[in-house]
Amino acid sequence: MLYLDYNATTPIDSLVLKAMIPYLKENFGNAHSSHAFGKKAFIATEQARECIAQLIYCKPSEIIFTSGATEALNTALQGFYAANKTKGNHIITVQTEHKAVLSTCKFLETQGAKITYLPVNQRGAIDLNALQNAIQKDTILLAIMYANNETGMLHPIKKITEIAHKHDLPICCDATQVIGKIPVNIQELGIDLMAFSAHKCYGPKGIGALYISPKIKLSPLIFGGGHEKNMRSGTLNVPAIIGFGEATKIIQKEGYHTAKTTNLRSQLIKNLLEINAIINTDLNNALPNTLNISFANIEATMLTEILQNQLAMATGSACTSTNPTPSHVLQAMQLPKHQIHSAIRLSIGKQTTLEEINQASTLLKDTIKKLQ
Amino acid sequence: MLYLDYNATTPIDSLVLKAMIPYLKENFGNAHSSHAFGKKAFIATEQARECIAQLIYCKPSEIIFTSGATEALNTALQGFYAANKTKGNHIITVQTEHKAVLSTCKFLETQGAKITYLPVNQRGAIDLNALQNAIQKDTILLAIMYANNETGMLHPIKKITEIAHKHDLPICCDATQVIGKIPVNIQELGIDLMAFSAHKCYGPKGIGALYISPKIKLSPLIFGGGHEKNMRSGTLNVPAIIGFGEATKIIQKEGYHTAKTTNLRSQLIKNLLEINAIINTDLNNALPNTLNISFANIEATMLTEILQNQLAMATGSACTSTNPTPSHVLQAMQLPKHQIHSAIRLSIGKQTTLEEINQASTLLKDTIKKLQ
Repeated sequence: MLYLDYNATTPIDSLVLKAMIPYLKENFGNAHSSHAFGKKAFIATEQARECIAQLIYCKPSEIIFTSGATEALNTALQGFYAANKTKGNHIITVQTEHKAVLSTCKFLETQGAKITYLPVNQRGAIDLNALQNAIQKDTILLAIMYANNETGMLHPIKKITEIAHKHDLPICCDATQVIGKIPVNIQELGIDLMAFSAHKCYGPKGIGALYISPKIKLSPLIFGGGHEKNMRSGTLNVPAIIGFGEATKIIQKEGYHTAKTTNLRSQLIKNLLEINAIINTDLNNALPNTLNISFANIEATMLTEILQNQLAMATGSACTSTNPTPSHVLQAMQLPKHQIHSAIRLSIGKQTTLEEINQASTLLKDTIKKLQ
Repeated sequence: MLYLDYNATTPIDSLVLKAMIPYLKENFGNAHSSHAFGKKAFIATEQARECIAQLIYCKPSEIIFTSGATEALNTALQGFYAANKTKGNHIITVQTEHKAVLSTCKFLETQGAKITYLPVNQRGAIDLNALQNAIQKDTILLAIMYANNETGMLHPIKKITEIAHKHDLPICCDATQVIGKIPVNIQELGIDLMAFSAHKCYGPKGIGALYISPKIKLSPLIFGGGHEKNMRSGTLNVPAIIGFGEATKIIQKEGYHTAKTTNLRSQLIKNLLEINAIINTDLNNALPNTLNISFANIEATMLTEILQNQLAMATGSACTSTNPTPSHVLQAMQLPKHQIHSAIRLSIGKQTTLEEINQASTLLKDTIKKLQ
């Protein structure tokens, strides 16, 4: 079984699991207990927080742990709106954002927020002039992702934060897909709120983080014992936090595997262009590991179903658990209908080999030819 | 190092970890991916949901997974208020609830809710007539815990739900401390919303559940891809869910260790009453594993600090991560000041031995005598 679905989730690095095991066994304390069991757990979570902060160039005190990127984005958006709605009620986002942002924005509309969903062009890019023009007197926040999960499209975050800050506006950035794939320097980029998770970068599921700039006022989403400086209550998920820390440590040691994934993707493209295919990913401006591609006269859901036991890939996003509907990302890019319905996402990981790429290509080409 | 802090957290049962390991390694799929990796993960999470449902006598479809009991309680209370506030804005709770309930209620007050915090007597019990009298025309919900985490006090939940249902009111019950300690039959008890977590019953941290009766209308707290029937978005924490399921399976097999923990607690009490001690737990009406006890002329925080490397116990609750303040539970019980300041919580688990109980007693008695 070949796995080319690293944007959906990644296997846990063996070193990450090794770091977690003691905290799944003997070091089981509640990180907020005052005895030795508790202190051991607490110290380890603080070390993990430091590793994560180092990776993205922020202070450990600026990171809170959540159960994942979805909760982090909900905390950022709902929490920012609750704490700042007296200043204005307008938020600008993009039509191609992850559902964690779009559904939360839809909810905020029921709470009185006014949301602008910026359109994108056929490459998935927003028009920076249109962004500029969308800013109003009552605008309080920009919510724009770093890289799109379906196409790999990279938004020019540095330019976007410059526009935002020129208008004294903070930016909330969904960085779930970029962490571990390309370097992210919060300080240089000027991001104010940033959400990401461990399971997209060889860490465990069930743990995420929210970077909160000290300039930002935020209300909590989850109330209780006052953990995470009152920003997120609930017993700390110690083993998962340790795993998250180790995953970021490994990224700092191994780097981003950019050359490798770029080369493998090039080979994949070369192979697949031997049949009738259209590339939906803007290759000059995307994550190096992601390829969104369509094939003539193919129903992507049928293709993935036929190959479900041989090749793991995606149509749309695994993050959308409801019935498969045409990708809202490709729809926003206004691609032709047949191109949307035949689109698959192949995403490469650090464990992917050239042999796997060639095997996957052969599988895809043979199956597609038969279907056509 | 002796561990008598099972109410703060429990070690993961070795069988639970064994069940989790494949999902931390080769079965790493995203449970909502359509390929074999995803389906394997999805099927396993549904089996876990069935085990959990069996334990509490509900349907699997009535359970949603959360990151823990705190998130489950926030979803229940915030979600219920959001979906039902047009019917009324009054909620009744108790002064001795966990902070996850009390802090969420404080937040709901800022959203227009009117909260009655029922007092308790010196045993920690509420007056059922007072509860009855607190119900008003605009009351929409009762939020009352099953067992108190600090004293082990058991509220008469069956009688409380009868009162609630007589007035057509639903009840939200924090069952975090009872699951695995005494049998809980949702159908028989008539509970409408019930929150609990895995790490209090030998399962992993970072996973909880919320039982939602089909009669209850609830808004989600966390928006996104629409997981958990739109009630809780975010990638499923597959290994933790598998561990949660296994933990409940073990409870069904092993039972509740009630005779064992009751006997060990009796021995502990016998030992400690040899010195000047006052029992704060209502022994006739409490979890069998929990003992809250005070000692004359002792500062509990000093006692736990001195013994931090020898005996794991608690003052107040580990769930309250902020600076140690006098227990709000013992304060609500209107115990004398010196009794509150000298109170410790000892909580027994299924791995506790008689030898450990006697060692802990000796340690405590010797240290207390020296301090006195």
